[in-house]
Amino acid sequence: LRVAYHALAPFAQALLLRAGLDADKAAAVARLLALTDGLGRRTHGLAMVTTYLAELEKGTMAKTGAPTVVKDTGATAVWDGHYLPGLWLTEHAIEVACARADTFGIAAIAIARSHHIGCLAALVKGAADRGYVALIANSDPSGARVAPYGGTRALFTPNPFAFGYPGAEHPVLIDTCASITTTSMTRRKHARGEQFDHPWLLDAQGTPTTDPAVLEHATPRGSLQLTGGVDHGHKGFGLALMIETLSQALSGHGRADAPTRWGGNVYVQVLRSDFFAGADAFAQQSEFLSNACRENPPIHSDAPVRVPGDAAAQHLAHARREGVAFDADVWEKIAAWAAKLAVPLPVNLA
Amino acid sequence: LRVAYHALAPFAQALLLRAGLDADKAAAVARLLALTDGLGRRTHGLAMVTTYLAELEKGTMAKTGAPTVVKDTGATAVWDGHYLPGLWLTEHAIEVACARADTFGIAAIAIARSHHIGCLAALVKGAADRGYVALIANSDPSGARVAPYGGTRALFTPNPFAFGYPGAEHPVLIDTCASITTTSMTRRKHARGEQFDHPWLLDAQGTPTTDPAVLEHATPRGSLQLTGGVDHGHKGFGLALMIETLSQALSGHGRADAPTRWGGNVYVQVLRSDFFAGADAFAQQSEFLSNACRENPPIHSDAPVRVPGDAAAQHLAHARREGVAFDADVWEKIAAWAAKLAVPLPVNLA
Repeated sequence: LRVAYHALAPFAQALLLRAGLDADKAAAVARLLALTDGLGRRTHGLAMVTTYLAELEKGTMAKTGAPTVVKDTGATAVWDGHYLPGLWLTEHAIEVACARADTFGIAAIAIARSHHIGCLAALVKGAADRGYVALIANSDPSGARVAPYGGTRALFTPNPFAFGYPGAEHPVLIDTCASITTTSMTRRKHARGEQFDHPWLLDAQGTPTTDPAVLEHATPRGSLQLTGGVDHGHKGFGLALMIETLSQALSGHGRADAPTRWGGNVYVQVLRSDFFAGADAFAQQSEFLSNACRENPPIHSDAPVRVPGDAAAQHLAHARREGVAFDADVWEKIAAWAAKLAVPLPVNLA
Repeated sequence: LRVAYHALAPFAQALLLRAGLDADKAAAVARLLALTDGLGRRTHGLAMVTTYLAELEKGTMAKTGAPTVVKDTGATAVWDGHYLPGLWLTEHAIEVACARADTFGIAAIAIARSHHIGCLAALVKGAADRGYVALIANSDPSGARVAPYGGTRALFTPNPFAFGYPGAEHPVLIDTCASITTTSMTRRKHARGEQFDHPWLLDAQGTPTTDPAVLEHATPRGSLQLTGGVDHGHKGFGLALMIETLSQALSGHGRADAPTRWGGNVYVQVLRSDFFAGADAFAQQSEFLSNACRENPPIHSDAPVRVPGDAAAQHLAHARREGVAFDADVWEKIAAWAAKLAVPLPVNLA
């Protein structure tokens, strides 16, 4: 099954509107989910809309309202997100942070109680496309999937962070996390009865394993391995702590409150290069570095070195030209929600 | 050989003064090198003073002067460091950034042309001890030790970064880098004829190896593996790009200028928690998280989970009590410089 790229956002928007989400939020969430599919990050594209529709139905994702500004000191702010949709809320925070960076050169916003955010690369892209340098860090204090280094009990979420900045042809979009793999990838592997190629999880005793079941069904549960794995997972541990500190301790809401509602905390930071050495100097240095990566002699002659964001730009061009293909199991769930909400399905191009 | 902790800084200070370094810089560099030994980061403690003395003698580390303020917009600034000693220069930048954060809640300084910096944990500790949240990222555009993910030609330096914040008994000091191991560790292994326990390097064809010689003597040279290694080194790649961008592109000096002089670029950022949700809320959340780590059931019952900074605090207490032991090969080089500069050696406690 294949759907035209331009048809994805209106379809997702219609679903979210029918589920009762405010119009501005439905438009932003739908646009960013479609962009995420376009960028090739398929676990967090329209595949997520069914989850969001279920959360809206349950009332655990807020349908209406605005974040409360808990504190605003100009270059810094704290918001309470009231479990509003994370894509809309974080895009809104980036816009405000960009405007503050226009005044101060740097700005940061810490958000408590967002709902799930989705693809951070799609969010920093918006800022990078307009010339800003943007950082997003995200954790969910209600979730525990990753143990501290040397430990056996899951404590952290995978804690994604993204860093985006302008590039000559498309932005550089670094989007990674403190664990080797993610919750959604593990669920997908488990649902399909697949094992990981590498031992990227730990069982409850801390023994490395390729089996996604240790996270999904084992009792006691295992955990996702930290970036760096058994021999240098202290590096991922440092990242996990840094991201939880930025997103939870600064916002004043976190694991100490033992929240049980699925959500997310966010730290958004924006820099303006013309408050530093200037946009031209920034472009000269960053472009030189990107090209030095792309021209680096590859280990495998058929796999040239790519800069983060290069593949995403290719995916997006392909999606615009050829549409986006959906796996049958993913589309089946989306179609069931479309039927339930009486939203017509987009044309199948395949 | 063992030296009283309190004797280390005066000894190093005397050496640096005799080598012609300004008094304020000699005092700061010596104090921070001694602290680095105290924290247990031995490759970057007094072991580095011989390298700095040689650089001062050659004139490649500046002995006098101050950084030029290239731009200053309040919350952000760019400095030219004129190859002044990195420990002094970066500590000075942290002090200025803390003062700016007192006004704006957040502040960042990008520094071009520092000389070598040393232990970043020792530097963020100074800010964290006074209640700030501090980040330092560092790269050297004249150095190439780490290839981009999938590539074979060294392009990046290991690109260390540190993140420090206050803790109940001692600060949390996260100090890591974009490669698995470091240049100094590789040199030490090679000098001692040792192999790494894990394949943390790549030869010139990109094949993993435990042999430090590929970085030190092989032709063509190999490289240090990115954090994440063969199966997930794209994570270290993202960190390497982010750190070079913050420290080089923002300062407007970097690899595009093809510098050949050993030095370092720095990005310093300071946050004040009371401009966010407040110092009490910050402490509540971060302390909860640190304790949840320490109480986590360990994989190996004799290796409890430690928060970054815990071991450093123990090392420092031990150093203050028992002094600091030096390996014979390290001390021999220091003693040779002391003889040359007619500086009396500290008392050997051993």
